[in-house]
Amino acid sequence: MELTTVKLVTIIAEAVLEERILHDLRQLGARGYTIGLARGEGTRGIHASDWEGKNLRIETLVAPEIADQILQHLATHYFPHFAVIAYTTDVQVVRGTKFQR
Amino acid sequence: MELTTVKLVTIIAEAVLEERILHDLRQLGARGYTIGLARGEGTRGIHASDWEGKNLRIETLVAPEIADQILQHLATHYFPHFAVIAYTTDVQVVRGTKFQR
Amino acid sequence: MELTTVKLVTIIAEAVLEERILHDLRQLGARGYTIGLARGEGTRGIHASDWEGKNLRIETLVAPEIADQILQHLATHYFPHFAVIAYTTDVQVVRGTKFQR
Repeated sequence: MELTTVKLVTIIAEAVLEERILHDLRQLGARGYTIGLARGEGTRGIHASDWEGKNLRIETLVAPEIADQILQHLATHYFPHFAVIAYTTDVQVVRGTKFQR
Repeated sequence: MELTTVKLVTIIAEAVLEERILHDLRQLGARGYTIGLARGEGTRGIHASDWEGKNLRIETLVAPEIADQILQHLATHYFPHFAVIAYTTDVQVVRGTKFQR
Repeated sequence: MELTTVKLVTIIAEAVLEERILHDLRQLGARGYTIGLARGEGTRGIHASDWEGKNLRIETLVAPEIADQILQHLATHYFPHFAVIAYTTDVQVVRGTKFQR
């Protein structure tokens, strides 16, 4: 079995941004995503005390060049206006699995 | 304090597969796991619009050789039949902690 | 766009430890965090069968030296007494974003 390295892009954002972010991810080439619930408090003093309608963790496995484009897009269009965290991680998948779910 | 690198295996799968996957993880040598709720949409067009009974994120910290065996096992026995995502990440833990929880 | 590598610290702990751990993270220099729900079973035989009030996944993006201090602190003050998992991962962020949320 051969492994290959791809990028996991993780985005933490307010739930109201879900549709907009997912639309952008698809436009930038992401083929699937996973969403989990989150809450947090950060450098801007935002606090979410319950689990409903607050923050989402959006994750997508993509090729490195798409990961770069996603980060660039978020930095340009989201970071100035919204409380969004985004980071990428190198992960290993089975070659040929096409990030399926 | 000395750190050591181990593998974090992340599996996103339908909730109905939980018992089967956890059984397999134990058989392959995993000694503990963490489960979170997830939903997603991917290359097969699966869509989960609510949080109940849909997808789980299953994570386990294991030695590299066990991580390889888990990916191999999933690729052989799950990928052809189920909408499963799996990937491994290098993470650092405190040496001697035995991935405890 | 320039990327920089920082450390993602992930902590899985019982929900009753939330305030204590968050206090310690702030004291050690973390400027924000994300929390998700989790459950698990591990080497100590702890089992959480439902989602309420059991385990939390606490994540924070920090500089490498702060990540080391957090792991050291957890290993000294939590591992002997509580069922806590902690690990760090190298992740890439857009330089200058200051881990914002």
